[in-house]
Amino acid sequence: MGLIVQKYGGTSVADPEKIKNVARRVIKTKEEGNDLVVVVSAPGDMTDELIDLAYQITDSPPAREMDVLLATGEQRSIALLAMAICDQGHNAISFTGPQAGIITNGIHRKARIKNVQAERITRELSEGKIVIVAGFQGSTEDNAITTLSRGGSDTSAVAVAAGLRADICEIYTDVEGVYTADPRVVHDARKISSISYDEMLEMASLGARVLHARAVEYAKRFDVPIHVRSSFSESPGTMVAKEVEDMEGVVVRSVTHDKDQAKISIFGVPDRPGIAYRIFQAVGAAEINVDMIVQGVGKDGRAAISFTVSEADLRDALEIVQRVGKDIGATDIIADENIAMVSVVGIGMKSHCGVAAKMFGALAEEDINIQMISTSEIKISCVIDEKDTERAVRAVHSKFLLPNAE
Amino acid sequence: MGLIVQKYGGTSVADPEKIKNVARRVIKTKEEGNDLVVVVSAPGDMTDELIDLAYQITDSPPAREMDVLLATGEQRSIALLAMAICDQGHNAISFTGPQAGIITNGIHRKARIKNVQAERITRELSEGKIVIVAGFQGSTEDNAITTLSRGGSDTSAVAVAAGLRADICEIYTDVEGVYTADPRVVHDARKISSISYDEMLEMASLGARVLHARAVEYAKRFDVPIHVRSSFSESPGTMVAKEVEDMEGVVVRSVTHDKDQAKISIFGVPDRPGIAYRIFQAVGAAEINVDMIVQGVGKDGRAAISFTVSEADLRDALEIVQRVGKDIGATDIIADENIAMVSVVGIGMKSHCGVAAKMFGALAEEDINIQMISTSEIKISCVIDEKDTERAVRAVHSKFLLPNAE
Repeated sequence: MGLIVQKYGGTSVADPEKIKNVARRVIKTKEEGNDLVVVVSAPGDMTDELIDLAYQITDSPPAREMDVLLATGEQRSIALLAMAICDQGHNAISFTGPQAGIITNGIHRKARIKNVQAERITRELSEGKIVIVAGFQGSTEDNAITTLSRGGSDTSAVAVAAGLRADICEIYTDVEGVYTADPRVVHDARKISSISYDEMLEMASLGARVLHARAVEYAKRFDVPIHVRSSFSESPGTMVAKEVEDMEGVVVRSVTHDKDQAKISIFGVPDRPGIAYRIFQAVGAAEINVDMIVQGVGKDGRAAISFTVSEADLRDALEIVQRVGKDIGATDIIADENIAMVSVVGIGMKSHCGVAAKMFGALAEEDINIQMISTSEIKISCVIDEKDTERAVRAVHSKFLLPNAE
Repeated sequence: MGLIVQKYGGTSVADPEKIKNVARRVIKTKEEGNDLVVVVSAPGDMTDELIDLAYQITDSPPAREMDVLLATGEQRSIALLAMAICDQGHNAISFTGPQAGIITNGIHRKARIKNVQAERITRELSEGKIVIVAGFQGSTEDNAITTLSRGGSDTSAVAVAAGLRADICEIYTDVEGVYTADPRVVHDARKISSISYDEMLEMASLGARVLHARAVEYAKRFDVPIHVRSSFSESPGTMVAKEVEDMEGVVVRSVTHDKDQAKISIFGVPDRPGIAYRIFQAVGAAEINVDMIVQGVGKDGRAAISFTVSEADLRDALEIVQRVGKDIGATDIIADENIAMVSVVGIGMKSHCGVAAKMFGALAEEDINIQMISTSEIKISCVIDEKDTERAVRAVHSKFLLPNAE
């Protein structure tokens, strides 16, 4: 008995049979006595197909029009899911992101949700309807269609849950939950039963693809508990919620890795105030997320700055850095796509020493060179050569996370 | 130098190459110094594909959700066309029907446009942009997505032109204009250079598919001149406009035929007031358009009523008539899909006698039996056996419309 928001991804609504399955699952939850809002993504590969189509028209599709095009994907899903639910004898009504009151800023293709004006959804729920909402999209106050970053349907679901003060947001996915490492790499990785927002946030930023970082951020801000679970089974997945005391008993919650990273190094940077600002202000203005930044110690008044971005952003970032680099008198700029980031995450680190040393030790034992290091209160990340990724993840996982770990 | 609304149908935007062609044509008009709004349909067969998809989910898709699904078709077209125009160096912005301010009533899948709140379009035009609008769709005042009847993009274009007080509405199609008969049936049919709203309205209702009746109705009400022309050539097509005096010189403007008709006959109907009302009130309530109604003279206090509907509506209409027929004590109900309607249209008929007799004579000479007759001030229609259609059209056309016609 509660108000539940469920989110189903693109693979769950890829074809009519799968949509009917989702409908059955949704109806089961409804029949258990819950009010229910369902957020869905575009079917299967449709978003990629639409992007391809746009590039058959032009090499530089305007972002605003791309959003108009892409938004048709989820709109297809909501209509079909509502039909499938009605066909099974329940009352459902679909809303696009704009209709559902999902208000975003105006940065097309990477819009951020400002708030959800959920009155319309509430009205339909009070009439006993199952409400279906298009994920990944919203509208500006000026009524333009926007889409969020890729994977933004998770964020839509959490934002809708926050707007409705829902009891829980269930994210259905093709894995059983959040694991101590990617099970495809580490075969004895274990499912985590509960994890704090902060840990999940770091993991999402560091390559764990099960949940989108922005969604976790939003959930943390509005204290929306998230249940990450499999759409193919009934077993409980992973609860992502506010930190509770016993969570600190575990020093390292998980090992993550991210091969979709590239490194840009800028050499001969004048060692004076304002230089880093000029570089990263320009990169940020282009809506490119910078992950790790390391500034080496300078000599002769010159320093070296390295930072990582996702591979998809490398070309744009490099162009910007080359432009800014000329202005600031950098001597050399080098890009490297063949890197990966391996990280350990855990709020227990706050109160434990020696975690970094233990991680470096695990990599050293495998003879893996560390190119960059970055730490926060609850994570340690190392940039390494991409080809060493799997060995590194396994070594670190067995050092920290196996039952018999030291 | 003016404000022009252009409408391109589904075949014109069926693939990227065709969309680029439309973009070139649009830009040419813009560069001639005009302000320009372009209304487009869904690409090619997409509407049919989406309908198929819905029926893979359910046998009875709710009309509201069908509209959400179908509206994605034109939304795809507007985004791609705007991209193509931008790619060719002009500034374009797309709007869905709801965004463009096309307000309809709430009858899903057969919505009627109430008005167009064109402020937003006007604002973009004043900034020099080419505005692209999705045809066939709008929204209710309550913000639900609606679609018009099939072919409704013509109506969207005319309604937008009316809302903007545009100088002209150009409907681009795959034929050169409006002909004196279907050129595929009558090889010496001639293009009509100008025609009155009333004639075009009758022709559209009577099977001339080049323009949608509702669009002509709307154009007449708001006095929007329509130019029907080919998207593959530069030659002028047919102007549809207010009746002017010299139009009356032509007695018969064209011969139309419609095979997509079915006949329902109800026998043994009590010959008393209110019976026709009960039948057609029920049929009308189901949003089924009735074309021709003929009530035969009764005997023994019983009459026979026959009427025609489009073949697509036959099943629904028949169900209703069988239900109502039981209530009113009809003795027999017969449906016949193998009929066609052949008509002559012309405002000159108002002031000429003998047109009907001449038409019946043409059919008699070909030994074609007439099943039903219906006349108005400017048209005469005959229902005949479907297999006689082509012969009937040719006979009537040569009687009235060839240069050497009697």
